[in-house]
Amino acid sequence: MEAAPINPSDLGLLLAAADWKNPKVGGTPGLPTCTAATALSANALRSLSARIDVSMPVGNEGAGTVVAAGSARGAQALIGRTVAVLGGAMFAQFRTLPVDQCLVLPSGTTAREGASCFVNPLTSLGMVDTMRREDHKALVHTAAASNLGQMLNRICLTDKIPLVNIVRKADQEAILRAAGATYVCRSDSATFMQELTEALVATGATIAFDAVGGGPLAGQILSCMEAALNRSAATYSRYGSSTHKQVYLYGALDMSPTTLNRNVGMAWGVGGWLLTPYMQKIGPQTLQALKDRVAAEIKTTFASRYSGEISLAEALRPDVIEAYAKRATGQKFLINPTKGL
Amino acid sequence: MEAAPINPSDLGLLLAAADWKNPKVGGTPGLPTCTAATALSANALRSLSARIDVSMPVGNEGAGTVVAAGSARGAQALIGRTVAVLGGAMFAQFRTLPVDQCLVLPSGTTAREGASCFVNPLTSLGMVDTMRREDHKALVHTAAASNLGQMLNRICLTDKIPLVNIVRKADQEAILRAAGATYVCRSDSATFMQELTEALVATGATIAFDAVGGGPLAGQILSCMEAALNRSAATYSRYGSSTHKQVYLYGALDMSPTTLNRNVGMAWGVGGWLLTPYMQKIGPQTLQALKDRVAAEIKTTFASRYSGEISLAEALRPDVIEAYAKRATGQKFLINPTKGL
Repeated sequence: MEAAPINPSDLGLLLAAADWKNPKVGGTPGLPTCTAATALSANALRSLSARIDVSMPVGNEGAGTVVAAGSARGAQALIGRTVAVLGGAMFAQFRTLPVDQCLVLPSGTTAREGASCFVNPLTSLGMVDTMRREDHKALVHTAAASNLGQMLNRICLTDKIPLVNIVRKADQEAILRAAGATYVCRSDSATFMQELTEALVATGATIAFDAVGGGPLAGQILSCMEAALNRSAATYSRYGSSTHKQVYLYGALDMSPTTLNRNVGMAWGVGGWLLTPYMQKIGPQTLQALKDRVAAEIKTTFASRYSGEISLAEALRPDVIEAYAKRATGQKFLINPTKGL
Repeated sequence: MEAAPINPSDLGLLLAAADWKNPKVGGTPGLPTCTAATALSANALRSLSARIDVSMPVGNEGAGTVVAAGSARGAQALIGRTVAVLGGAMFAQFRTLPVDQCLVLPSGTTAREGASCFVNPLTSLGMVDTMRREDHKALVHTAAASNLGQMLNRICLTDKIPLVNIVRKADQEAILRAAGATYVCRSDSATFMQELTEALVATGATIAFDAVGGGPLAGQILSCMEAALNRSAATYSRYGSSTHKQVYLYGALDMSPTTLNRNVGMAWGVGGWLLTPYMQKIGPQTLQALKDRVAAEIKTTFASRYSGEISLAEALRPDVIEAYAKRATGQKFLINPTKGL
């Protein structure tokens, strides 16, 4: 393993929602340990009871060079090739995986370039595919200046899919505008609801993928979708628009409860969205087609940027933990398990 | 028209969420008018803008005797028969409808007995059918002592479907226990969440139909479903149970925002459920089979009780409005448009 990103989806397992201010550092420089200073609440502990005292290897994805292979068909041919892999426990020096779980990167692609071939690329492709499967024609995305959001913006520009980006701040808007985004709405605007409604009228988007999860945002998106749909309603309908409006929560940047005002008619849904069941649903052939597209466009559409490249030992340094625990836009770390060896 | 129930689904159109305390009464005894004393809020008015100054005939369903018919196939044969009808504008003395929208009641069935053949019967049958279509094996229902809830309880007992009834009060529990319900959980209990979880473990219910809509209830049901599923989990899964949990909101007894805590894993959904799109989805043949069952069992499984039978003029009397506007359990009125004529 030569490169493995710390994704938001790794942080729950890695940090267990503990408070990482002033942790206790122990072990040796080569094999450090890091323990949260304050205990988890009884409530948090209850939901984590099944993992107490259980070893939990972390790291959803990564890339590296095949150094040994078994006798399975095609396995020996991989020796020396740079491959991207998905499957957990990737924050490690070596990883053994079935040959068909290895995505061979185009020659000239480094492990760093191919480290994030799955989680963000397949999630953003999965959003576009889900939009089509569920008969929508345009997308809404929140926390849209994230690494994933920028990727989704590139896919939508390439595939000519109208995308409404929702961000919180001016610098996040600037990132997306510079990347060619047409619709960017800022939730810190006093006229956010009006601006979002106008963007929804213009695009016809009736499905959203929301990384924020908590607070009023998912409900606001549904309300604005309903307002946009009612703009063209000819007569009063007491049950609102009959067009289905959907928000999928795929993240939890805001851990507070989701609040829905329900001024959205009756044709609406909110639910969880997760990559793994999506991949199971579409089946191996469709999934391989998506992976092949990722490999082919890994230096363009699906390129990821990292704010730092760290060793496994550095990933346990308190200042580094503090940096990645923030889940801040533009703060994405790459673990290089060969660094410092 | 000889009998038409005032259903909760009629009240939105009839009362427009206005305050009906001390309304202004006008008109004549035979043709009275009743106007709310206080104006609606600007916000409420905005969502009702499309119906201002538009005549809005009310009454989803009813029954009566066919007194005249056209030349369509089968129409003349209906003359003199008692039929149940669905289609709006039923709070009236006469109603013209296509022949295939008339459900002929078994002989010996009165209009009063057949007045509620559609809204509650098809909604409760639709809940059971939706449960099966979406691969669940047991049901949760809230506000479960309602006319509809008692009907659903009878269907589930007949069809041997495990049903978890949620009610707010002791007298509501008593109604359901007397009707043979096995699982009744009271949301006013200090140990409501534990009791609900145990009922969900026992039944395996992973779908709920919620008439309350607002507040924490829908989220509590999802949380308890997740807790029940995790009871049998062998290992820790950071994304929670992979079994889909669904709550459909089909009513709005509580108009406050719906709050979801999201301690439910990622495989969950909350959404609106409405009879009309459900009927469109299942198609005319399946729908007719459901209607035939309702007609055959209208005096047993699908029997409705009414707390009062009123004339069209009485439906506008302030004390009567106050009674049906409460949406209280056991307070269901039947309009008899022939009364007092």
